[in-house]
Amino acid sequence: MNPDVAFPIWSSERAQRVAAVLGRVMPPAAEPPQRLHEAMRYAVLGGGKRARALLAYAAGELAGADPGMVDAAAAAVELIHAYSLIHDDLPCMDDDVMRRGQPSCHVAYGEAMALLAGDALQALAFEVLAGTRSRDAAALSSLLARAAGSRGMAGGQALDLQSTGAAPALTELERMHRLKTGALIGAAVHLGAGCGRPLSAEEVDALDRYASAIGLSFQVVDDVLDVEGNVQSLGKTAGKDAVQQKSTYVSLLGLSAARERVQALRGEARSALASFGPAARRLGEIADWLATRSN
Amino acid sequence: MNPDVAFPIWSSERAQRVAAVLGRVMPPAAEPPQRLHEAMRYAVLGGGKRARALLAYAAGELAGADPGMVDAAAAAVELIHAYSLIHDDLPCMDDDVMRRGQPSCHVAYGEAMALLAGDALQALAFEVLAGTRSRDAAALSSLLARAAGSRGMAGGQALDLQSTGAAPALTELERMHRLKTGALIGAAVHLGAGCGRPLSAEEVDALDRYASAIGLSFQVVDDVLDVEGNVQSLGKTAGKDAVQQKSTYVSLLGLSAARERVQALRGEARSALASFGPAARRLGEIADWLATRSN
Repeated sequence: MNPDVAFPIWSSERAQRVAAVLGRVMPPAAEPPQRLHEAMRYAVLGGGKRARALLAYAAGELAGADPGMVDAAAAAVELIHAYSLIHDDLPCMDDDVMRRGQPSCHVAYGEAMALLAGDALQALAFEVLAGTRSRDAAALSSLLARAAGSRGMAGGQALDLQSTGAAPALTELERMHRLKTGALIGAAVHLGAGCGRPLSAEEVDALDRYASAIGLSFQVVDDVLDVEGNVQSLGKTAGKDAVQQKSTYVSLLGLSAARERVQALRGEARSALASFGPAARRLGEIADWLATRSN
Repeated sequence: MNPDVAFPIWSSERAQRVAAVLGRVMPPAAEPPQRLHEAMRYAVLGGGKRARALLAYAAGELAGADPGMVDAAAAAVELIHAYSLIHDDLPCMDDDVMRRGQPSCHVAYGEAMALLAGDALQALAFEVLAGTRSRDAAALSSLLARAAGSRGMAGGQALDLQSTGAAPALTELERMHRLKTGALIGAAVHLGAGCGRPLSAEEVDALDRYASAIGLSFQVVDDVLDVEGNVQSLGKTAGKDAVQQKSTYVSLLGLSAARERVQALRGEARSALASFGPAARRLGEIADWLATRSN
């Protein structure tokens, strides 16, 4: 692939690439139990930005890894993300009936099958990651597991549950989002980088700062889009935060300060990458893209 | 530990051992998000036979592994088992309000928190397993993931869902249970053995036959106990299969033939171990124990 292609071409190529990998690692829909495999494929292959996979590929490039070496890591983070959306949308959680412009998995396949599809996708993520060609597959597995578990994404969801109806301060909101969204975004970056050359402690630290900034920015943008967006562009229900009286960056900061926060975080992400030079090109472009996205 | 102790002492020591490991690997209940960590600890530390952990330790002994080398694998299979019970008991699945003589996790902590506790426990299983001291941690992780996923336990649950109300033939029932219960039991045996010396293909095959026989026997005994048992001895609702009009070994074979099947499977398990000699002592004792258990 041409290293000089513009970002939209690079990202579209990588998104197609991980979609193909995902299509291959999931059992075919015709294999029993068919409804389970259909539900898994429906939830995973139904689109989405593939932001986490792109981060893994971009971090892999930074560390000198070919896309082929990053495929397993990129697919694994997308599988974890997809499972979390299925469980998030369930009636006992956010009770959301639309996702990526389609009926949510439990609307299409029933609650029990959606629950199992999520469970099976989490297991599949670790199966796929175990097959990665890396210096230390066990370290990568441990990294993904921590990001997904109670000290990461699942813990963030639990904090979110506890906060519904209450009005958390900005620091608590930030703590919740660092776990709920930030942990898996950080894992995507570090897993991708882990597929390449060993990084120095300073380099790992710089990637941490990058991931932390874009992880948070990701959520602030989501909150802004929930206010500004509509169901067509988002592919999911807009305006839900206000209806649920959830604290968001917009409700706490106001719309204009929230937008400024996004730009400040983009700056932080960019400056964390400075020492890497041109090797960090795609990570920088992803920071720009995430800060200016409309869905 | 004395290698000559009787089975009840050996198994009680190992059950206490894995409970201590589980208590250590889970975040303390006082660590935020507290409700999530409480729910995880409630579901995992609330008792149970620890049959899967015992199988891992026994298979480890067969392969010359000290208990300390097997701890992570034993804890990992128990974490997967515990998560599956939480999700199984949810209203959209079996809707069971009692487990191990206590309110089910979702009754105690709410559906959303129970869902997340199960999700976080699955992630923790892979985190713990990644820390195992083994020849090939990635191979063990892959083995556990396959056993837990759509071609293993979650797939078996999906087949079970599809069969409720219908009346599957014996071969379909067996196929379902080989996934739903058998896959994780097989993983417990192979993970435990994987912590010791490398086994020959014949030895792996013999362990497969052993695990397959006791995995199936486990389910036949469950079905018998559901008819014969009561809620005090089982710690969960008895007689549910009949109420739900589920096909079971008892409904398909009759009680007496089901009991005979248990003894035949115990014989199969025992003969699969014959070539290992005294090293397989604990695996043999577990086969006897599982075939004669009353809860």
